[in-house]
Amino acid sequence: MDCVFCQLIGDDAVEWIARGPSACAFAPLDPIAPGHTLVVPIKHATDIFDAAPPILTDTMTLVRQVADAMRSTLDAEGVNILHASGPSSEQSVPHIHFHVIPRWNDDNFSTWPTAKSQHQVAGEAVRHLASAFPRTSTRR
Amino acid sequence: MDCVFCQLIGDDAVEWIARGPSACAFAPLDPIAPGHTLVVPIKHATDIFDAAPPILTDTMTLVRQVADAMRSTLDAEGVNILHASGPSSEQSVPHIHFHVIPRWNDDNFSTWPTAKSQHQVAGEAVRHLASAFPRTSTRR
Repeated sequence: MDCVFCQLIGDDAVEWIARGPSACAFAPLDPIAPGHTLVVPIKHATDIFDAAPPILTDTMTLVRQVADAMRSTLDAEGVNILHASGPSSEQSVPHIHFHVIPRWNDDNFSTWPTAKSQHQVAGEAVRHLASAFPRTSTRR
Repeated sequence: MDCVFCQLIGDDAVEWIARGPSACAFAPLDPIAPGHTLVVPIKHATDIFDAAPPILTDTMTLVRQVADAMRSTLDAEGVNILHASGPSSEQSVPHIHFHVIPRWNDDNFSTWPTAKSQHQVAGEAVRHLASAFPRTSTRR
């Protein structure tokens, strides 16, 4: 129980947005928009590499329900989903979570990165990635 | 067939990263990192509000496989997933897509928004959102 999200999930005093059997939703400590929500599986998984597929499905189902609620209850026009998994990704808490951020035409900010990665890959990154999907590779 | 992604999905000349029965993956025109990948359902849906749940599940399964491939073939340490749905969200193409961006400790950039939403919500946004989840509301 060293995980801050696991501790929080067991806390009845939290002001929940949604608390389901396999995923829950609550506001972050430092929201970047009114209604900014974290959607988190109940069962601990560190990141997307560590999450069992049904947990990922249940979590995304709640992400979508939260997105719907942003339109119906906050009159948001759109949403962003932001996620970080693993070292060097800027993941803040090592319990998998998705940020759902409501957007309005007067919100006057951007969620798209302002810079580009400075990392260099030897060879063609697209071909390296495609090599992990054998049926794709044979089509090329 | 006015949708640029629907046209692209039917194009055998595309350099695919992965091309499955319900979702596919390819590089964007202007990648922000080597290996930056778009994961897209084959069947047209405009955004997360419009996508049938099984399509969202299949698309996220491929997102996760692409994330795994970024570690195994590009030696990425982590990944970001970035997504925009609907008006005012900075969604670039109105066919639902997820950006998967590999991260390394020497990439020297950030994907986290640098500013905050300027939109104002009347009342408490968290309570408005929670009202869309009745079982949650009765616990509070």
